[in-house]
Amino acid sequence: MITKQEYEEIKKESLKYIDQAGIVLTKHEANHLEVTDFGLGRVREMGLQLVVYMNTERCCAKELVLLPRQTCPQHLHPPVGNSEGKEETFRCRQGTVYLYVPGPKVEQPQALPPEDRKQYYTAWHEIVLKPGDQYTLLPNTPHWFQSGDEGAVVSEFSTKSTDEHDIFTDPDITRIVEIQES
Amino acid sequence: MITKQEYEEIKKESLKYIDQAGIVLTKHEANHLEVTDFGLGRVREMGLQLVVYMNTERCCAKELVLLPRQTCPQHLHPPVGNSEGKEETFRCRQGTVYLYVPGPKVEQPQALPPEDRKQYYTAWHEIVLKPGDQYTLLPNTPHWFQSGDEGAVVSEFSTKSTDEHDIFTDPDITRIVEIQES
Repeated sequence: MITKQEYEEIKKESLKYIDQAGIVLTKHEANHLEVTDFGLGRVREMGLQLVVYMNTERCCAKELVLLPRQTCPQHLHPPVGNSEGKEETFRCRQGTVYLYVPGPKVEQPQALPPEDRKQYYTAWHEIVLKPGDQYTLLPNTPHWFQSGDEGAVVSEFSTKSTDEHDIFTDPDITRIVEIQES
Repeated sequence: MITKQEYEEIKKESLKYIDQAGIVLTKHEANHLEVTDFGLGRVREMGLQLVVYMNTERCCAKELVLLPRQTCPQHLHPPVGNSEGKEETFRCRQGTVYLYVPGPKVEQPQALPPEDRKQYYTAWHEIVLKPGDQYTLLPNTPHWFQSGDEGAVVSEFSTKSTDEHDIFTDPDITRIVEIQES
């Protein structure tokens, strides 16, 4: 649950990050920037802001905005129908992103999820993305990410995006955001 | 044919456009920015500069740079093997792009190809892209584009890119660039 006021505040903040990154949006895109709290009600800790440029049957492009130290919780993109699942490339445009994927566990992670949800995080191989750096994730790869203290803007290039099929490891997560109107 | 000196000059100019658009490249990407004259030897009139971010079996992302009034000649992306052909979305980041596709012919085109190659251009439906505007082209769609007087930077989001399969309507065009070393 997120209040309408908080939703609008975070939208406004996110648009500032987009603007600082030199990215031009149409008015319609700016108005429709999406804020998600993954149903956890702690959007500044665990949440994500998105602008979907296009999403066809074959490919998709988005800009993602992360507020300072905001975590996008661990999830994966499973096969859907005849598709092997979503492949995605994250390209950092601004700020720093700590991305965690399966592989040798980093000894001292530079990002940590909220302590009370940590049990649901299994990917601990750390990839650090600074502006210009990118990383490609194959389907079915558990991953999560958090921005550094300055927040971040990340371009995502992928195959068709079907958020409703994403599998989150935290059982309390839902991708449908409830906005409290009053 | 393009001289090594011209290639390097245009590369340097193109990197300035990328920088002005607020886009950060890695050193490797900047060093490998590609200049193509389509084999016509008149690169400032008919040419294109590209940075390929990623190109997997399933999707691809690039930045394109156009010098002022530079034309990317008419071509299409045909089916290749089991693929129906490349689908691509152009998103203007900086400057103005005049994109021509099949459809009702514009009366007074805001861009024209060089007079001596004009006979090879059949797509005359005009789409004007300013920063934030985008347009998606389905496979097998003849198209060409030219930037306005300020040059342009365009992001391309697409399915797998196989430039070697592109079909250009101008029979003198070749996608392999010959660089004169001396």
